Amino acid sequence: MLYSQMSKEQLIAEQQDLQAAYQAFQQKKLCLDMSRGKPGADQLDLSNEILNAVAAPNYKTENGTDARNYGGLDGIDEMKRLFSEIFGMPAEDIIIGENSSLHMMFDAIAQAVSRGLGGERPWATLEHVKFLCPAPGYDRHFGVTEYFGIENITVPMTETGPDMDIVEELVKDPMVKGIWCVPKYSNPDGITYSDETVRRMAALQPAAKDFRIMWDNAYIVHHLYGKDEPLLCLYTECKKRGTEDMVLMFASTSKITHPGSGVAAMAASNKNIALIKKRMSYQTIGPDKVNQLRHARMFKNLADVQAHMEKHAKLMRPKFETVLTALDSRLAPRGIGRWHRPNGGYFISYYAPHGCAKRIVQLCKDAGLTLTPAGATYPYGKDPDDSNIRIAPTYPPVSELQTAMELFCIAARLAAIEKLLS
Amino acid sequence: MLYSQMSKEQLIAEQQDLQAAYQAFQQKKLCLDMSRGKPGADQLDLSNEILNAVAAPNYKTENGTDARNYGGLDGIDEMKRLFSEIFGMPAEDIIIGENSSLHMMFDAIAQAVSRGLGGERPWATLEHVKFLCPAPGYDRHFGVTEYFGIENITVPMTETGPDMDIVEELVKDPMVKGIWCVPKYSNPDGITYSDETVRRMAALQPAAKDFRIMWDNAYIVHHLYGKDEPLLCLYTECKKRGTEDMVLMFASTSKITHPGSGVAAMAASNKNIALIKKRMSYQTIGPDKVNQLRHARMFKNLADVQAHMEKHAKLMRPKFETVLTALDSRLAPRGIGRWHRPNGGYFISYYAPHGCAKRIVQLCKDAGLTLTPAGATYPYGKDPDDSNIRIAPTYPPVSELQTAMELFCIAARLAAIEKLLS
Repeated sequence: MLYSQMSKEQLIAEQQDLQAAYQAFQQKKLCLDMSRGKPGADQLDLSNEILNAVAAPNYKTENGTDARNYGGLDGIDEMKRLFSEIFGMPAEDIIIGENSSLHMMFDAIAQAVSRGLGGERPWATLEHVKFLCPAPGYDRHFGVTEYFGIENITVPMTETGPDMDIVEELVKDPMVKGIWCVPKYSNPDGITYSDETVRRMAALQPAAKDFRIMWDNAYIVHHLYGKDEPLLCLYTECKKRGTEDMVLMFASTSKITHPGSGVAAMAASNKNIALIKKRMSYQTIGPDKVNQLRHARMFKNLADVQAHMEKHAKLMRPKFETVLTALDSRLAPRGIGRWHRPNGGYFISYYAPHGCAKRIVQLCKDAGLTLTPAGATYPYGKDPDDSNIRIAPTYPPVSELQTAMELFCIAARLAAIEKLLS
Repeated sequence: MLYSQMSKEQLIAEQQDLQAAYQAFQQKKLCLDMSRGKPGADQLDLSNEILNAVAAPNYKTENGTDARNYGGLDGIDEMKRLFSEIFGMPAEDIIIGENSSLHMMFDAIAQAVSRGLGGERPWATLEHVKFLCPAPGYDRHFGVTEYFGIENITVPMTETGPDMDIVEELVKDPMVKGIWCVPKYSNPDGITYSDETVRRMAALQPAAKDFRIMWDNAYIVHHLYGKDEPLLCLYTECKKRGTEDMVLMFASTSKITHPGSGVAAMAASNKNIALIKKRMSYQTIGPDKVNQLRHARMFKNLADVQAHMEKHAKLMRPKFETVLTALDSRLAPRGIGRWHRPNGGYFISYYAPHGCAKRIVQLCKDAGLTLTPAGATYPYGKDPDDSNIRIAPTYPPVSELQTAMELFCIAARLAAIEKLLS
């Protein structure tokens, strides 16, 4: 029965039942974690061969470079070729980084802040710089711009991506310097931007000449059901319009091989690549080519990566389905909240009745289940509706996940009743 | 016979002989490189076991962390302990980075430029920031500050380190924000700072509150003759005087294991470490812990590192001695230039007669021997005396090095004669 149709007495009775169930959970002294998009140990085991992929005397790259020594600023040829296939971009437009794509994004923003981009004034010397943050979104993106004292402006997410009417309006402000995007299987909603959204993004005419679309294609090959949810290539669309210098694209193998020891990469226009390589030439003598070589040996091409991702999906699907089954069977009949059914990525985004998210996370925490803090998916941690909760199902084993979701649904029901009774 | 005592006729005769010898070298179409401090392949082979040091199922750190997954911002415990021994600093004052200590230095300066240090204004917002560069010194250090538009001020190096009279005077300028130092087996002179230099460094009273000593201890365990040339601990000296927030110390395993895939680290006061960790928490989810674990397994403690460094020294000594023997036997009798006899590090610093360095490098280049560009060891590539040439003997095998030094000495003699005749 829908809670909205229950009488006060019915709600109080339901609340008492739930409180008993909740207290039983508290007795169990659980220690569960669904807070971060972290692969499970079973997923990591899929890539263990990579640990042995480079050994003496086979430490040379295909062009004869000794991977152990200094040099090779922008990556080894075979990794550029692999990411060229992944991004759908020419190899010369690719830079291979260290293990973290976030680090490459941070450095790109840092460069704009400290030195400026393409002759424009460094953002550090400007009064008030702003950045667009489609939300709910990835907390660490918003953290980068927040760190640099840039004002994060919330843009609502829709079923087709960021609300482009609002984006088009906001970029008329010359102090708006960019936008954060996870265009495919977005964090946390699992939404893939529609063709129209991508085209409107490519057609943006920002007042700021140094406006940058931070296109974090973190889940570019991370399909859950073997089927690619197609995303139009932003770069191609930009090329048609001559706006390609506006785009920086990122990806990594963090959730393909091992998150701690993966390889990150970026793709961009010649002009941007040159600007970034110049900075890198002062920043480091070169990346870890041995680790790049490990990856290149494990994956000869995109097809190898795709076959590998299917193994991940096979392990992940039961986890996503555990979460969805719980929500469908325990919350849907009571009409509490809504959620997405993603075809890829790492999250399920749950929207509680307004004003309930913080309470749900707190209830879970008090019974031993850590969730991403409510609000974390919004700039400054402030969800205007106090509604969105990001559920990360991959790290715990299925059995733990079932327990966690039982608890989660009890907490969600309790919070909903508290709100209705208040 | 000393060239300075030769008659014009004698010099011309000598020049003709040398030109014939030089042309014979040009015929050989050599392709030799003594430009960078790059270990030879034989040195890299010493560490090949590290490539196999982590394999499934032994991917856990000593505290049970799965090194393959995300996390561990400032490094794994066993690597902090190792660098704690190397630096002689408590493990809690250590941050383990990625593969490049230069990157850690760049990021430290970038932080000061874009966000400021400890509440001081970001350097990007100041009119004219200056940095002290003891020279000859490490070109890539000077490059970092140059990249950020900071004015590099040359401070002469002496036999005991930077000229501290000048440093003490210059730091009275509030726009002087720091100094670059390679305090042990300095690049390129191979000088270890004297106790007095270190004490005066610790006692500096800069006008700038955010003044930083960039203490790049790149050659901290890199002795050539098994004997440590002792360097007073700057941090301890600073502690005595309450100036420890002024110091950032760096080191790496680049020239211990494999340069491309080593592990960098820094050590600093609690206050600086907190400031840097805060930035890193926005910058990355964590470093490559698998590679850290490889290193920790290869080296349980400092004694393991020292034993390993002796193997490097054994391979390096004949190379250093090849260079010194050539200089001693071919240039000393003619009274051309001077040079150091380093007890560690990666370079031999040759001081040609004033005005000859560029010419020597050019002559070598035209006969197929690449040297570090003349002037590279000075800010903006400008050696006021056009005298210093950095010789990097480690990369070529001894046989090539002998050829290279024959050519080098011919070039040095030719340049000296040209100067005397002009």
